[in-house]
Amino acid sequence: MFMLHQRLQEDTVDVVRLGLSRVLLMNDSSFPWLILVPEREGTSEIYELNVADRAVLIEEIAIASEIIRQLYSPDKINAGALGNLVPQLHIHVIGRFRTDRAWPGPVWGTGPAQPYAEEELDIVSGRLKKAFEQRVASDGGQ
Amino acid sequence: MFMLHQRLQEDTVDVVRLGLSRVLLMNDSSFPWLILVPEREGTSEIYELNVADRAVLIEEIAIASEIIRQLYSPDKINAGALGNLVPQLHIHVIGRFRTDRAWPGPVWGTGPAQPYAEEELDIVSGRLKKAFEQRVASDGGQ
Repeated sequence: MFMLHQRLQEDTVDVVRLGLSRVLLMNDSSFPWLILVPEREGTSEIYELNVADRAVLIEEIAIASEIIRQLYSPDKINAGALGNLVPQLHIHVIGRFRTDRAWPGPVWGTGPAQPYAEEELDIVSGRLKKAFEQRVASDGGQ
Repeated sequence: MFMLHQRLQEDTVDVVRLGLSRVLLMNDSSFPWLILVPEREGTSEIYELNVADRAVLIEEIAIASEIIRQLYSPDKINAGALGNLVPQLHIHVIGRFRTDRAWPGPVWGTGPAQPYAEEELDIVSGRLKKAFEQRVASDGGQ
């Protein structure tokens, strides 16, 4: 039985479920910031997934990256699995801009989150959900 | 024709070549820190690789992570593709310790590198090379 880590639950809203991962939107409007959480209980490291799950995971990272590119046109995508504070395996996929507050450094720990306004959170997560659903449909239900 | 980015060349030493990636050791003894560079000229983002290369890449990330675990027994592995400064696609795989200088934050930009002594660099990169070669041999030459 998979349970999302409490810290992830507090900091994010649900976007969509893919074949392996739950996709979350970080509630920080400073960056277009998704988090992929493979729904495999008790996993902390990429090497703990099996080969098939790993192949799916990197496809899901690629899809999340492309959706951020399509919707936000960032200068760069940052993808990272850190987990120093939250041991449940989760992969950050973040659109970065030369003008963002942390550029060219990493985003983690660079300041307090700027939460979305409630309506904005619904709009942004809904737009992302739609983009994932369209992508999954065009990939033939994968 | 694949050319390693100059900055990567300056900051690292060669460890080994895998099926897709060149494995480099960051010349910073503060952390056990490998960098995987897929030998695909002109690639900046994971989604620019094809599906087959991506599946190989995540296996190579898993192998690099397991080798760091075996040799260093870190508390956590951090894996990340940032590229805000060096656009050539490269993936950091770093062993993290609760006692390291950047914990629990990310390592990037946290201080000047502590270069290995010359002999130590040879010993460390040699030990890593051997571990990769043993792993690749046990995987049947993959």
